[in-house]
Amino acid sequence: MDPWRTALVNSSDGSIRIRGYDVTDLMRQGSFVDTVFLLHRARLPTPDERRLLDAILVSVADHGSGAPSCAAARLAASGNRQSFSAAIAAGILTIGEEHGGAGAQCMELIAAGVEEARTDGITLDEAARRLVRRRRQARARVPGLGHRVHSTDPRVAVLFGMARDAKVAGDGVAFVLALEEAARASIKPLPINIDGALAALLHDLGFPPAAGMLLFIVGRVAGLTAEVAEEYTRERPMRIRIPVQYDGEPPRELDGTPVKTPELQD
Amino acid sequence: MDPWRTALVNSSDGSIRIRGYDVTDLMRQGSFVDTVFLLHRARLPTPDERRLLDAILVSVADHGSGAPSCAAARLAASGNRQSFSAAIAAGILTIGEEHGGAGAQCMELIAAGVEEARTDGITLDEAARRLVRRRRQARARVPGLGHRVHSTDPRVAVLFGMARDAKVAGDGVAFVLALEEAARASIKPLPINIDGALAALLHDLGFPPAAGMLLFIVGRVAGLTAEVAEEYTRERPMRIRIPVQYDGEPPRELDGTPVKTPELQD
Amino acid sequence: MDPWRTALVNSSDGSIRIRGYDVTDLMRQGSFVDTVFLLHRARLPTPDERRLLDAILVSVADHGSGAPSCAAARLAASGNRQSFSAAIAAGILTIGEEHGGAGAQCMELIAAGVEEARTDGITLDEAARRLVRRRRQARARVPGLGHRVHSTDPRVAVLFGMARDAKVAGDGVAFVLALEEAARASIKPLPINIDGALAALLHDLGFPPAAGMLLFIVGRVAGLTAEVAEEYTRERPMRIRIPVQYDGEPPRELDGTPVKTPELQD
Amino acid sequence: MDPWRTALVNSSDGSIRIRGYDVTDLMRQGSFVDTVFLLHRARLPTPDERRLLDAILVSVADHGSGAPSCAAARLAASGNRQSFSAAIAAGILTIGEEHGGAGAQCMELIAAGVEEARTDGITLDEAARRLVRRRRQARARVPGLGHRVHSTDPRVAVLFGMARDAKVAGDGVAFVLALEEAARASIKPLPINIDGALAALLHDLGFPPAAGMLLFIVGRVAGLTAEVAEEYTRERPMRIRIPVQYDGEPPRELDGTPVKTPELQD
Repeated sequence: MDPWRTALVNSSDGSIRIRGYDVTDLMRQGSFVDTVFLLHRARLPTPDERRLLDAILVSVADHGSGAPSCAAARLAASGNRQSFSAAIAAGILTIGEEHGGAGAQCMELIAAGVEEARTDGITLDEAARRLVRRRRQARARVPGLGHRVHSTDPRVAVLFGMARDAKVAGDGVAFVLALEEAARASIKPLPINIDGALAALLHDLGFPPAAGMLLFIVGRVAGLTAEVAEEYTRERPMRIRIPVQYDGEPPRELDGTPVKTPELQD
Repeated sequence: MDPWRTALVNSSDGSIRIRGYDVTDLMRQGSFVDTVFLLHRARLPTPDERRLLDAILVSVADHGSGAPSCAAARLAASGNRQSFSAAIAAGILTIGEEHGGAGAQCMELIAAGVEEARTDGITLDEAARRLVRRRRQARARVPGLGHRVHSTDPRVAVLFGMARDAKVAGDGVAFVLALEEAARASIKPLPINIDGALAALLHDLGFPPAAGMLLFIVGRVAGLTAEVAEEYTRERPMRIRIPVQYDGEPPRELDGTPVKTPELQD
Repeated sequence: MDPWRTALVNSSDGSIRIRGYDVTDLMRQGSFVDTVFLLHRARLPTPDERRLLDAILVSVADHGSGAPSCAAARLAASGNRQSFSAAIAAGILTIGEEHGGAGAQCMELIAAGVEEARTDGITLDEAARRLVRRRRQARARVPGLGHRVHSTDPRVAVLFGMARDAKVAGDGVAFVLALEEAARASIKPLPINIDGALAALLHDLGFPPAAGMLLFIVGRVAGLTAEVAEEYTRERPMRIRIPVQYDGEPPRELDGTPVKTPELQD
Repeated sequence: MDPWRTALVNSSDGSIRIRGYDVTDLMRQGSFVDTVFLLHRARLPTPDERRLLDAILVSVADHGSGAPSCAAARLAASGNRQSFSAAIAAGILTIGEEHGGAGAQCMELIAAGVEEARTDGITLDEAARRLVRRRRQARARVPGLGHRVHSTDPRVAVLFGMARDAKVAGDGVAFVLALEEAARASIKPLPINIDGALAALLHDLGFPPAAGMLLFIVGRVAGLTAEVAEEYTRERPMRIRIPVQYDGEPPRELDGTPVKTPELQD
């Protein structure tokens, strides 16, 4: 088998370099957020970029034990006390298109919308209106807008404010705000959710859409590890049993005939 | 890298052999249960062995959507509509010492008990009484006895009856029955559960303890695939949110002082 | 939280019913393959249906330790000796669009092709030719055709022969054969692979496309459990290290300047 | 079902608090490393504590694509192009006792050694010598010492130096150094590895042993996300096939007789 190739890490006896930087330099003078940025972008962030990525990771670290990712991690920790990594992995596996995945989808929309505005010589507002109209006709949701719990997600304004202060806010922030306005005008008020805010900032920071999900996972694992630790220390194994209502076939014999309930005798 | 070595499967252009047998022979004249037995035991089963392993796999296929394995698979299917395998894997990850793992532990007990009886020249009944006494002193449960739902698990008598009819029942079945009797006499009635029955039969069929968990997984995956398929077809994504009660620190500022709730004005 | 609903399993004290059937009836008079069919199709199979599903599960049980699913399971078993389920889950997670997923995709094609033939009043052969033409124009592969290892996959003819003998072969088998012929005529010889054969049979057995992946997983878990058991018993932990070739940035200081290699002194 | 209880996160409409702190305060004035510390320790870190935890997370972020965690993530990404989370989870599942798990084990040793020194009124050096002696007699490794690649792991001295500068180095660092010396004297030079250094610092920072694995996972997920992103962008699906050497049963018929290889005719 040929060696696999990589541009990420080079380690040999006594030396570990991440994209060329000595890991001990990063440990002493850099930070974990620098390292995340470096791994994904092949360069170190500016102080403003670092600050925004840091805030993004904080914003998705944990949203409560009842979210699918945390609940699945706890279920696995409840049934399988043998392996922390099994419980964390179960939590991560709930993350996809529907949970933690809207960020990546919204980043695709932003990229397409910004491109459409440029190509057709229209404003971002007009591009956002077109997009919302098409989504509405297709009866599809607009990823990045709306939330099950929050009528206004407090993290959104903070991220946008930080992006503006850092002079990082660009087309991403503008387009997501335009989406919110277009949805409000033609559908109903659908406030920007954390996925939408994260997508706007990551776009303006220059990350590709895939980062919308990958960086969500980096942040969420912080919460998952704590959820699992709490499950181990506070709860007894197998405490969880989800209540279920059966609504399928009534009792039947193997030949398909109904089971005759024996008459009760007195 | 040196090639990995294996005694399981040899495949080359036009040929796939499992432990020496042509896979097409197994497809035409053998069965899936034969193949499971063959993969784990390096020989084909007798008809009686096949019948018992078949019944064991049926017995653990599914016990309801509320069990940790099924619930975690559904949670993952609910949040991540991108990948069936992610949902099945999340379900499997709940399986361990506490869920689906008692079979392997009980097989260890059986092996130790049978060995102790032989070495010390005592009966299996006496060996079982010793074991229950030691467990009781250590305040440890006896794996294979007791169930959260069933006062009598209907699968146990059926498996033991089939093992007797097939003349396979041996030390494993005898020892687990002796455990149940010893627990009843010195602790309380703790009926044999499916893990205990599965352990007894797998011991008598000559499987090593690890098979107690591995074959549970083979059977349970049948149920997990159906649970996931039902979640996709009957339920909308993200329908599940577990209710949570927070009982931690009250609201505080970053400097640790309590948050002053703004007085309500009228 | 409202109870979850399910039509799969109803269990209460002393009773477990799968789609209405008593699990002990299935254990005594049915089989694991019956149970798989029942869970997915809500009825028991005929003897011919059972036989074909049985052969399908055998056909995908294991194809060698080097396949991604088996290799990932072994890597996880090598690094994490704490949990069988973690290793099996790692193996399952490699299954998706590219590995074990072509069956489901091919079932979608078959369904679309059969529908197109019916709607447009054309033969299955013509529908297959159209489909291959469209794929070719889109530079897309035809799932179900071609294999990395086998020029002729020995499992295909066996499955098709069994389906014909059982009088189950229908549009699915016919359409996949037509695809192979259309590809041969307009692209190059691309023999039907196991995914294509599995897709043809599952279509003719009335399964939905999702079953193409779900049943692959049921079968493959048999092999994964044996691969993991072999890794635990034959190999020492952490034996596996994949050789890697670094081709990224050369050594650099945190300020971006190249690392000056200290001159060697003598 | 009763609500689950948690002391980690409280979220309601318009408010998310992590252990009492408003998530938006943490985003604006705190950091991701603060949040990790807070989730696990229920308080914010001091600047020195933050700096050390930050360096620990950097130190384990990635050690090369050939490590089991990274290799399994790439294998899953190679086979299953449907889900990032599936690939990340596969990588995490390789983490356990043998890979990324020595930190937690070493923390158990440190806690036991420090306790033994206190109880028996002996020095940490003497406690370390006793421990190494017992391990040697049991032919067991000392977790935290020795490495497959590095004769001297460059990360260790850096972490210990930072801990000393921050006045955090205490019994943990002292005990691990004593272990290294005791091993050198009675076995052979076994330099402290990253797990041992991480264990020493986390002990001195007041973390429980479980954190040895949980925080390794938090750090490593940064690397896993980048490995998966690189696999998606640089490599074609299914590029990986591990070479395998079969050494099992020779070809045989279902009745067990050897397959007669047809004589070659000329």
